[in-house]
Amino acid sequence: MSASKPTLYSYFRSSCSWRVRIALAHKGVDYDYKPIHLLKKEQVSDEFMKLNPMGQIPALIINNQTLTQSMSILEYLEEAYPQKPLLPKDLFTRAKVREVCEVISSGIQPLQNLSVLQKVGDEKKMEWGHFYINKGFVALEQLLAGCAGKYSVGDEVTLADCCLVPQVYNANRFKVEMAQFPTIVRVHDALSNLEAFKAAEPTNQPDCPEDLK
Amino acid sequence: MSASKPTLYSYFRSSCSWRVRIALAHKGVDYDYKPIHLLKKEQVSDEFMKLNPMGQIPALIINNQTLTQSMSILEYLEEAYPQKPLLPKDLFTRAKVREVCEVISSGIQPLQNLSVLQKVGDEKKMEWGHFYINKGFVALEQLLAGCAGKYSVGDEVTLADCCLVPQVYNANRFKVEMAQFPTIVRVHDALSNLEAFKAAEPTNQPDCPEDLK
Repeated sequence: MSASKPTLYSYFRSSCSWRVRIALAHKGVDYDYKPIHLLKKEQVSDEFMKLNPMGQIPALIINNQTLTQSMSILEYLEEAYPQKPLLPKDLFTRAKVREVCEVISSGIQPLQNLSVLQKVGDEKKMEWGHFYINKGFVALEQLLAGCAGKYSVGDEVTLADCCLVPQVYNANRFKVEMAQFPTIVRVHDALSNLEAFKAAEPTNQPDCPEDLK
Repeated sequence: MSASKPTLYSYFRSSCSWRVRIALAHKGVDYDYKPIHLLKKEQVSDEFMKLNPMGQIPALIINNQTLTQSMSILEYLEEAYPQKPLLPKDLFTRAKVREVCEVISSGIQPLQNLSVLQKVGDEKKMEWGHFYINKGFVALEQLLAGCAGKYSVGDEVTLADCCLVPQVYNANRFKVEMAQFPTIVRVHDALSNLEAFKAAEPTNQPDCPEDLK
């Protein structure tokens, strides 16, 4: 249904961009990658602000329309590209998938993103990020213990998995002790073996610096 | 399709519970209201934690299943009760509705909720809450200027409106200067006249103290 090739504005280490990269790879949607360097503040450049006045990535240009906000983009992709669904059919299970997504996308990530850490200040930012990821993962572990199969919710890859993997990467950056969270670790490791998840990793993006590969 | 009467665990002033109350009222879904007093920490009582181990409201019990996380509940209600839809049919417009929701539900509300303000501390909490709501509303005003009609996205009530009204209430609590945001104010005022939105207001909940009515 979507004839033109989409363009994703992304940063290799942006966890919200990463969610979208996973979904695109999982569904086999070919796209152009446009890097936006967050530390160089390219997201608030005149050129990018014309595309997304919010000054945020990811942004997905598709059929000459600009989509922003990662969960909204994921839901759009699920509706526009129904192949290899990332939401189950059963309504309660769909709600469970979205619940896992929301615990991460509203309950954890916003509290440890770059702009919040800048306001918290250099001295406190590691403690702050660690605190919120750890707190969120205590809840998430309990949630996944009740709904995970091979992956976050049951045995099929879902939107929940698109959110989980980038958040675990951030947990490691903030030195969260992952041994507390056996279900999260097990699911994360299973997902990491899948081709779509490998393709979406920061180190496989064109804007990943050579010394981080 | 949902035969049993749902039960909503709510607190009159919880903005996330409020979002769900609006959707239930809009769709004409009758439900039982169970108050959970956040300041008395009833959300982490043994009894409530059996229902929702996350210790958070809202929670919606429906057909003996527990749903949590407000945006996930809203999407469930939209799928289970398709009458009076809160998402448009066009895929891009649906994405726009969810984008507005996400700017609020991930970009603003999590940064000014009770537990974050407690960590920030009494001295700084007003400045902190004000800063994040104001910053979010600057972006939201620009977004709505491009997509609002009578309401947040076009001329029909959508999920975006369920998120907008409670967030404006919080903006007022944090003394954000609303004259900066004419589109937000106009849409908020139009929504406030609708019966479903009146029914969902904090002052119309059974657990609203008499002196706040």
